Amino acid sequence: MRFLSDNAATVHPKVWDALQAADEVDTPYDGDSWSQRLDTAFGELFGREVAVLWVATGTAANCLALAGLVQPHGGVVCHEEAHIEMDEAGAPGFYLHGAKLMLAQGEGAKLTPDAIRAVVDPIRDDVHQVQPHAISVTQASEYGRAYRPEELQAIGALALERGLGLHVDGARFGNAVAYLGCSPAEAVGPAKALSFGCVKNGAMNAEAIVFFDPALADMVQYRRKRAGHLQSKGRFLAAQLLAMLQDDLWLENARAANAAAQAIVAEASERLMHPVEANEVFMRLTADEREALRRQGFEFYDWGADAARFVAAWDSDQSAARALGRAIASL
Amino acid sequence: MRFLSDNAATVHPKVWDALQAADEVDTPYDGDSWSQRLDTAFGELFGREVAVLWVATGTAANCLALAGLVQPHGGVVCHEEAHIEMDEAGAPGFYLHGAKLMLAQGEGAKLTPDAIRAVVDPIRDDVHQVQPHAISVTQASEYGRAYRPEELQAIGALALERGLGLHVDGARFGNAVAYLGCSPAEAVGPAKALSFGCVKNGAMNAEAIVFFDPALADMVQYRRKRAGHLQSKGRFLAAQLLAMLQDDLWLENARAANAAAQAIVAEASERLMHPVEANEVFMRLTADEREALRRQGFEFYDWGADAARFVAAWDSDQSAARALGRAIASL
Amino acid sequence: MRFLSDNAATVHPKVWDALQAADEVDTPYDGDSWSQRLDTAFGELFGREVAVLWVATGTAANCLALAGLVQPHGGVVCHEEAHIEMDEAGAPGFYLHGAKLMLAQGEGAKLTPDAIRAVVDPIRDDVHQVQPHAISVTQASEYGRAYRPEELQAIGALALERGLGLHVDGARFGNAVAYLGCSPAEAVGPAKALSFGCVKNGAMNAEAIVFFDPALADMVQYRRKRAGHLQSKGRFLAAQLLAMLQDDLWLENARAANAAAQAIVAEASERLMHPVEANEVFMRLTADEREALRRQGFEFYDWGADAARFVAAWDSDQSAARALGRAIASL
Amino acid sequence: MRFLSDNAATVHPKVWDALQAADEVDTPYDGDSWSQRLDTAFGELFGREVAVLWVATGTAANCLALAGLVQPHGGVVCHEEAHIEMDEAGAPGFYLHGAKLMLAQGEGAKLTPDAIRAVVDPIRDDVHQVQPHAISVTQASEYGRAYRPEELQAIGALALERGLGLHVDGARFGNAVAYLGCSPAEAVGPAKALSFGCVKNGAMNAEAIVFFDPALADMVQYRRKRAGHLQSKGRFLAAQLLAMLQDDLWLENARAANAAAQAIVAEASERLMHPVEANEVFMRLTADEREALRRQGFEFYDWGADAARFVAAWDSDQSAARALGRAIASL
Repeated sequence: MRFLSDNAATVHPKVWDALQAADEVDTPYDGDSWSQRLDTAFGELFGREVAVLWVATGTAANCLALAGLVQPHGGVVCHEEAHIEMDEAGAPGFYLHGAKLMLAQGEGAKLTPDAIRAVVDPIRDDVHQVQPHAISVTQASEYGRAYRPEELQAIGALALERGLGLHVDGARFGNAVAYLGCSPAEAVGPAKALSFGCVKNGAMNAEAIVFFDPALADMVQYRRKRAGHLQSKGRFLAAQLLAMLQDDLWLENARAANAAAQAIVAEASERLMHPVEANEVFMRLTADEREALRRQGFEFYDWGADAARFVAAWDSDQSAARALGRAIASL
Repeated sequence: MRFLSDNAATVHPKVWDALQAADEVDTPYDGDSWSQRLDTAFGELFGREVAVLWVATGTAANCLALAGLVQPHGGVVCHEEAHIEMDEAGAPGFYLHGAKLMLAQGEGAKLTPDAIRAVVDPIRDDVHQVQPHAISVTQASEYGRAYRPEELQAIGALALERGLGLHVDGARFGNAVAYLGCSPAEAVGPAKALSFGCVKNGAMNAEAIVFFDPALADMVQYRRKRAGHLQSKGRFLAAQLLAMLQDDLWLENARAANAAAQAIVAEASERLMHPVEANEVFMRLTADEREALRRQGFEFYDWGADAARFVAAWDSDQSAARALGRAIASL
Repeated sequence: MRFLSDNAATVHPKVWDALQAADEVDTPYDGDSWSQRLDTAFGELFGREVAVLWVATGTAANCLALAGLVQPHGGVVCHEEAHIEMDEAGAPGFYLHGAKLMLAQGEGAKLTPDAIRAVVDPIRDDVHQVQPHAISVTQASEYGRAYRPEELQAIGALALERGLGLHVDGARFGNAVAYLGCSPAEAVGPAKALSFGCVKNGAMNAEAIVFFDPALADMVQYRRKRAGHLQSKGRFLAAQLLAMLQDDLWLENARAANAAAQAIVAEASERLMHPVEANEVFMRLTADEREALRRQGFEFYDWGADAARFVAAWDSDQSAARALGRAIASL
Repeated sequence: MRFLSDNAATVHPKVWDALQAADEVDTPYDGDSWSQRLDTAFGELFGREVAVLWVATGTAANCLALAGLVQPHGGVVCHEEAHIEMDEAGAPGFYLHGAKLMLAQGEGAKLTPDAIRAVVDPIRDDVHQVQPHAISVTQASEYGRAYRPEELQAIGALALERGLGLHVDGARFGNAVAYLGCSPAEAVGPAKALSFGCVKNGAMNAEAIVFFDPALADMVQYRRKRAGHLQSKGRFLAAQLLAMLQDDLWLENARAANAAAQAIVAEASERLMHPVEANEVFMRLTADEREALRRQGFEFYDWGADAARFVAAWDSDQSAARALGRAIASL
């Protein structure tokens, strides 16, 4: 009974079907008929014109999106526990040619206008200090918290006021939308670019970079090729993305993952470290308690000395999740 | 009847089988049981200890391999028509942090020790000129020519003498081995790193970087993650590679492609611009002749004003190849 | 009566003499007879073999020194208020090709082994997190604090244990040595590279990068040229450095600056925010008090809302410093 | 009797005067009164609004100027013997974050619209090939040839048509203007940025980057600091530049150097490899002939096996130049 992560989950049958349907020769790279449909498909999802580039990983999606917003001598304001800061091996430094991550604090790994100002305002407007060029937020956050539409609007207003681009790392965007019950457009707010995650949500190895300013994609497509991320059989990535959008599979999968997370929580909510607004559950559990759970066959990561992280995926067994919840409640 | 390129060909059924067999949750990234078998599997192929990293594209494979051999202030000697120079959008400049490609000439897009010396010898040994750190050759070359084992030994001896690392871009390595009839070890010579291509040879989106100096992989694995090329469901890449090695599928597929190329050539060899030693055929054909072929349903690329390039793939229809050969002979 | 900074002070007459004595044609770049004497001169100063490169600025000195110690995918542990983090416009990100500064805390802008461990120990030893490659400390620190020889030994021992290079930013190295009364070798500890500052200490535009591992200079000299820091009339930089070493002018000038700082402090030490161990004085002073001082003709920078920074230089008027001290005491 | 290079010549007395006049404390970096006068002074020279940044070396000037015109994924068309390609240790790759130099051919190291088109036109307009972003020409060229105003206009027209920025490397700009007898504005043509060289022309260590699009300087000033080229006592660089402009010292010095070059040529013009349009003289001379000249006390560089390069500087002894000319004539 595995609750280690959603990043190694199985591939959804509809994604498999789409992959196999794409197994015919077509124009290489992104000239194929699947890739050519992405702008329209995502445009319908978000209700406005967008330009979309596929890539294989979330790290590539985040860093290429930021490459459209940040010059090498600039900086990106992000949370000190953001994935781009903590878990991407310095990829932003590579893709942005040495630009700086400017670390803000905030409850639940979420940024607020005040937290951003606390980072940005002390920066002297001179050449000695790196100037911010963009803000990056994670929806849902690294602690499974969802930004409300009005929170994103407030951050977007600050970004506009300061001339900063806004990027949303949506590795678990579907989980946030499923939780919020709002439209995808509301859940991304006034962002210039979104990393629309699929790998954690039922795809094999395809993510979408959605540019709400389509001109950015014109530039970033060069950076994608230059980073070795332009696959010659790109139709297999595009097909995955289209399958995820078809009949809102992305949302259906996210709901399943969120439901499993809620099942874990249901009877043991007093142990929660963060409200569960996506598919991640952080709970206070002693080493002995964790050991007891593992003896019952549950797999998960320790989170520091006194806590554990459980992550549900689209394919998590709901009864296993309930069993885990009961096991925790019985500790 | 498509002879445009091998880079968008279909996926071999055995690769599909392997992909589907890998659709179970396992350790993410490259901790899964498929990825863990790569070093051994490639070690057996080459008859010595190797360390192997998977990536999704040939560009990433080439540039990450070179990142193990070249410092940012150094240079890479390559042919002026090498893929890394002509068709990777400046990716070496990105991955090597501004290191320089040093362009050599040579018949058939092949380097020789003399051609390399012609580039390297005039470089003054001072800080004003970029110093070479590595040599990169393509096996088979961009014009479908195969390096003989003794040619690689000679280049390797020069590399050793000058303290340069040797990299082999093997996007069509299988085609070269199939043509040469030698062992894989002989076809790679004394290289430090090989980009072992699979995408053009029946895989979906997996290439192997084979390090003959395993210590290089210890460093390059950081660069791979930093470049956003460490996929979380890496088992799907490893599974493709293992399927390619299983029962020498890589060689069988390459032989099929080569055979189709020879079928094109068979009756019209006087038009050849280069001997056909892999799966690419370059022929002198006027615009009118090309037009005539296209009217008969053949698809291919123009190669300048007076020539055409035909590329056969593992799944090329042998009778279509023969038909193309006859059509050319009848022009 | 200027106590704004030491970075724009006048040039010492002996430096002028040396500059003019160097105004004869010689081998360009660093082939001249002045540049050729640097290794020996600094070797005598530190009592061991060193290799020395001149550059025009402290930022270039720091970043080139670090380029010898850090790979692009690595990190540098430094204080969160270190000059390389706060005031070099992201130069480390540029010179180190995206490597990361890892920010530690510590009183008086000084690092301790514990503070370094607090940054380094939580880093997982995997490819997802940037691994540290070096430590950089500032002697004297950004708050005018001097590392004792035993403190540097302790940090060096940790660096050795973890396989990290140690760099000392010595923009005000002379002031530290003057305060400590120890040898230059003791004040630099087991560092691999030192930015030996002269610009703030009586030179015009020359700093020395001292490599205690001479092999590092062999590589960094390429990086220096590549960064546009190899001046063709390099003899004018070397001459400045030699003049600074001659008869310990560097130490004499630093003593003068330190003495002026102590004169400021003498009668108002209760206002100090940090012990004065170099030539910088940080004092609690209200806005009204600062205004009062400025009306008396004293120039200095505010340091936040409730404090001021006074910096003495080699050419500070000692009586002006005493007058400032009395004026503060009289507030 | 030294004709090795102009890059290590002495410093003009008026530059010394200016340096010493600048030896008073002022605002650091480029806030001082000397630096603040540069825009106006160069604006008068060129008859239009400009923004000027000082740096210490020509390599830094060239690369920072190009950083304003070229994105990391772009390219710079330059001559295959351009200084930025041959003698700057890969600095463009560093400053432009891996952007590519695209090498054109042309007599006398000069580009022509045709030569540029020969490089640019074959580049496919797709993401697989690096796209050109700028053109860089050297005035006077690396072989001492001067671009006529109409030649620059023609190149500028092509640049405009293709959307490319135009940069002029003017390491020996004064020599070109002195030869052409035109205005500085005519000699720079429709460039966006000029590296206005002074070091080879009587200064100690100051060059000007002149931006004819002042907005570029707003960005490049961040890059200058980030490259460690913002000196804290920048007044000493600005003072040198102002001294060079004062009473057209730059032109007077260049004329002196050109005159010395012509004196060398006067009696031996049949040996010339290139017309002498600046201060460099390239002559066919056998090894024996060169040996004979050296025995007479003349110092110069070999230029390949059968030629020599003589460079005159602002301070070259005119009688020594004539003596050299006679010695060559007498061979």
